[in-house]
Amino acid sequence: MSILVVGSVAFDSLKTPFGEREKILGGSATYFSLAASFFTQVRVVAVVGEDFTAENERVLTLHGVDTTGLERAAGKTFHWGGEYGDNLNEAKTKFTDLNVFENFAPKIPPQYEDTQFLFLANIQPELQLDVRHKMPNVKLVGGDTMNLWINIKRAELEKTLSKVDILLINDTEAKMLAGDSSLPRAARKVLEFGPKALVVKHGEYGATIFFRDGSSPFRAPALPIEEVHDPTGAGDSFAGGFMGCIASNGELTPQTLKRAMFYGGVMGSFAVENFGTERLQKLTREEIDERFQVFRSLTHLD
Amino acid sequence: MSILVVGSVAFDSLKTPFGEREKILGGSATYFSLAASFFTQVRVVAVVGEDFTAENERVLTLHGVDTTGLERAAGKTFHWGGEYGDNLNEAKTKFTDLNVFENFAPKIPPQYEDTQFLFLANIQPELQLDVRHKMPNVKLVGGDTMNLWINIKRAELEKTLSKVDILLINDTEAKMLAGDSSLPRAARKVLEFGPKALVVKHGEYGATIFFRDGSSPFRAPALPIEEVHDPTGAGDSFAGGFMGCIASNGELTPQTLKRAMFYGGVMGSFAVENFGTERLQKLTREEIDERFQVFRSLTHLD
Repeated sequence: MSILVVGSVAFDSLKTPFGEREKILGGSATYFSLAASFFTQVRVVAVVGEDFTAENERVLTLHGVDTTGLERAAGKTFHWGGEYGDNLNEAKTKFTDLNVFENFAPKIPPQYEDTQFLFLANIQPELQLDVRHKMPNVKLVGGDTMNLWINIKRAELEKTLSKVDILLINDTEAKMLAGDSSLPRAARKVLEFGPKALVVKHGEYGATIFFRDGSSPFRAPALPIEEVHDPTGAGDSFAGGFMGCIASNGELTPQTLKRAMFYGGVMGSFAVENFGTERLQKLTREEIDERFQVFRSLTHLD
Repeated sequence: MSILVVGSVAFDSLKTPFGEREKILGGSATYFSLAASFFTQVRVVAVVGEDFTAENERVLTLHGVDTTGLERAAGKTFHWGGEYGDNLNEAKTKFTDLNVFENFAPKIPPQYEDTQFLFLANIQPELQLDVRHKMPNVKLVGGDTMNLWINIKRAELEKTLSKVDILLINDTEAKMLAGDSSLPRAARKVLEFGPKALVVKHGEYGATIFFRDGSSPFRAPALPIEEVHDPTGAGDSFAGGFMGCIASNGELTPQTLKRAMFYGGVMGSFAVENFGTERLQKLTREEIDERFQVFRSLTHLD
């Protein structure tokens, strides 16, 4: 079944201990779309500027992503500049040129209206809620957010969270959102805002899914043997693998969710192996399933 | 088969967000012995002072720990004072009164000489090496260390590491020891010092075992639903469960090592549920195996 992602399609200029890149394709919706495209039909709603090339768009369409909802506006594409130090866990933002993204008003093309799965990537909570309202018949809604919105748009974010089924954030965001430094307690508090499930991403330590109904949590690993060249997009790629796997299964069983957690980790681990979307662009489904087995043997007793 | 642990038996005075305790039983050898006692016969070599009571010793002997090697010296027992803040990951040391521990010269009782497994808990590297030399016929040697020795006794520590089969340390120590901020690279460098395997403990994120021969690493979870009341002794309890499980199996198969990683995580998760050794003292083997199953379902796809 198809999945619609609403988020950013952007250019990134970044530096890591392994090198640097100028104005490469990035953005939450880009990483999500590419990662999810290995599992299911992906549709994207985002805005780009006049500097966004046909070649940039082809990265998505070559993976079967439906870009009907990729709006072209007058001006420049959202451009983020950042640098990662030695530990690669935190980016130092050098500049954030919102450009056309500043006035982004998501429009859902009519042919997207039958989409059954929706992912609200990290954009302003009001826009997320607006899109959610425009897609009343979706079967399942996933969402992401960030520290900025937790700090400056708390009320709006809480409204959005009440309309999200599965929230995917990292440890710091979960603790900040809950105002609690204990992860298990923070998870319980976040789930009180509405989501049925919360996926907390632990970076190199994997991710844990917590459930509102009190079911046992489940933890997926990350790969400890990788060389992280550029961590940008790891979380969005996790979300793409996770939601893509769920959408491709259709039915939301505990078994599907566990496999989705593994596929999320797998896609995140590939994303960071090279700069930007370079690794995801060259990836094959065979490599994905091989790594799924590596993740299994990394954690399974037999 | 039996295991000998050499380390500290101490008093701890500590404060956490959940309360405080004065001069309670602690020390690396204490936590290790209690945790390992659920799996195998434990023998201990350590030094205590005149303030160490028969009641203190009974905590060990009630769990079948052989305390023949518990030397009583003139003076006071090693006493550590510390405080944990909200995140509970790092202790702020308030005082370290080494007392009788300052001149600790480990003596191996003759009846310990047939011990087949040895664990060198966190003490001065020269003392660890001395004990290692006194036990030439052991089948397997586990060891621990800390940032202090990495900083001030580097050469001595490297000598000791060349005589240790499995080193158990945390992320920070592994990265410091290797001088590398990437965990997978740090693991490879640490293994070049000699150990066949390196267990890196990730606190609330579990632990990973890396192998010198290039075998795939294995990751054991920690329990994300616990309330951490006092993290003191978590690492030593992990080591006790891990080494105890190995000693009880005798043969060192990959399957034994994986189960040992799980039992390490299980014992660490119990240790932190209450202050000091309180939880370990009341623990049953049934509870341990129940939690082993919880850990399995937390991470296993089916």
